[in-house]
Amino acid sequence: MAAPHARICKGCWQQLRLPVPLRGPASVPFRVFGIRPSRMNPNICTICELMFTRIRGGRTISVDVSVLFADLRGYTTLSQLLPFDAVSSLLDVFYDECAEAIWEHDGLLNKTLGDAVMAIFNFPIEKPDHAEQALRAAREIQRRCGVRFKSLLADHPELSRSELGVGIGIDCGSVTFGEFGRSHRDLTAIGTVVNTAARAQAATAAGQILVTQSIRDRIGAGWISGEGRAYDLKGFENPVTLYPA
Amino acid sequence: MAAPHARICKGCWQQLRLPVPLRGPASVPFRVFGIRPSRMNPNICTICELMFTRIRGGRTISVDVSVLFADLRGYTTLSQLLPFDAVSSLLDVFYDECAEAIWEHDGLLNKTLGDAVMAIFNFPIEKPDHAEQALRAAREIQRRCGVRFKSLLADHPELSRSELGVGIGIDCGSVTFGEFGRSHRDLTAIGTVVNTAARAQAATAAGQILVTQSIRDRIGAGWISGEGRAYDLKGFENPVTLYPA
Repeated sequence: MAAPHARICKGCWQQLRLPVPLRGPASVPFRVFGIRPSRMNPNICTICELMFTRIRGGRTISVDVSVLFADLRGYTTLSQLLPFDAVSSLLDVFYDECAEAIWEHDGLLNKTLGDAVMAIFNFPIEKPDHAEQALRAAREIQRRCGVRFKSLLADHPELSRSELGVGIGIDCGSVTFGEFGRSHRDLTAIGTVVNTAARAQAATAAGQILVTQSIRDRIGAGWISGEGRAYDLKGFENPVTLYPA
Repeated sequence: MAAPHARICKGCWQQLRLPVPLRGPASVPFRVFGIRPSRMNPNICTICELMFTRIRGGRTISVDVSVLFADLRGYTTLSQLLPFDAVSSLLDVFYDECAEAIWEHDGLLNKTLGDAVMAIFNFPIEKPDHAEQALRAAREIQRRCGVRFKSLLADHPELSRSELGVGIGIDCGSVTFGEFGRSHRDLTAIGTVVNTAARAQAATAAGQILVTQSIRDRIGAGWISGEGRAYDLKGFENPVTLYPA
């Protein structure tokens, strides 16, 4: 069951000690000015999302976060085999289950592009144990999508031999968070951590989660018992050790 | 030089015959209600972007469009070699030059994710010659980024041997445009055309544009004089013919 939503913006409260009402009668005057729950996380507001530069007094800041990439394996193939409505509802299911799992762990669903999702943990909602939160969210995505895809495949026996599952990569460390581009302003994070998480995701099989050494160091080996393996990731000169989690 | 921006929303006008002021004194009352130029295209408004379902009376529609994917080659490698500010300004340059080129041709800069950009031509601003507009935008992106990257590389002689360039893929045909996901609503297009454009982009070398047979058929071989070649694209059972353009 989804957690009840916050009544004031968690981001504005933690970052600025500003109580911005998100729900109930107090939120009405705010809504007139376009301040409402963000699409990226229903517990933060559009001030966090759209007025970053104005409020932080600069375009970017350096923050310690965990970054998660999830990708729907088999999507390109399936979208050629399935009737149109089924592809559309497959994507609905994937986005929704990812969103719920990410929000349960106070993450920001920063980006979706086709069959890929990018989430950030520890900003603007602070979570000192963000690496653990990101891994919990990843396992929740796998669990939720596993259930939903099973029933989808049962409705389409012609897909029995197709691959359908989620691949997830996670890394943590310092990134630059802020607005990039001047004519098309875009709120996101950049840095090697983001690239590593994306490439780790690309290395997964359907149903798998791969995390970096930094994630394992923070969470502890008890949580991540799999053996590490060196992977050659595109754009990285040296092999990167990843752990199934 | 950038074209002057429209005074009323081109999307609302073409789709609904509704004159929504974007600039000047008439736009002030609209801005109070959060109706302002969209980040996806400064000549359309946030009604086009945020209230799609309410206005169209349904979550998705089927439209004939061209889809363009552009990707910054060498970004992962460069972001490990360059000082932080340089990576940030590299991304600023890439997003801004893509945005200007796409908007000049009335496209929608629908998505950015890391070093990738996705644009849609012919919706919500109608362009019967959208395939040609998309190709013109692609060539403009290459021209603009070529100039900017040359000066960036001149400032960083240590990068002389690095790859830095844009790869672009374009396809056209029918897609489903609308809102996907229910808890995290997301306005985008889905369909085989989107997947083909993304995979065509992945097949390009730095500085290259690859287009599909559908694009070539619409624009005519005069514009696209290169020889077609069959490519094995991920997720596609049969090879796909792509033309350098």
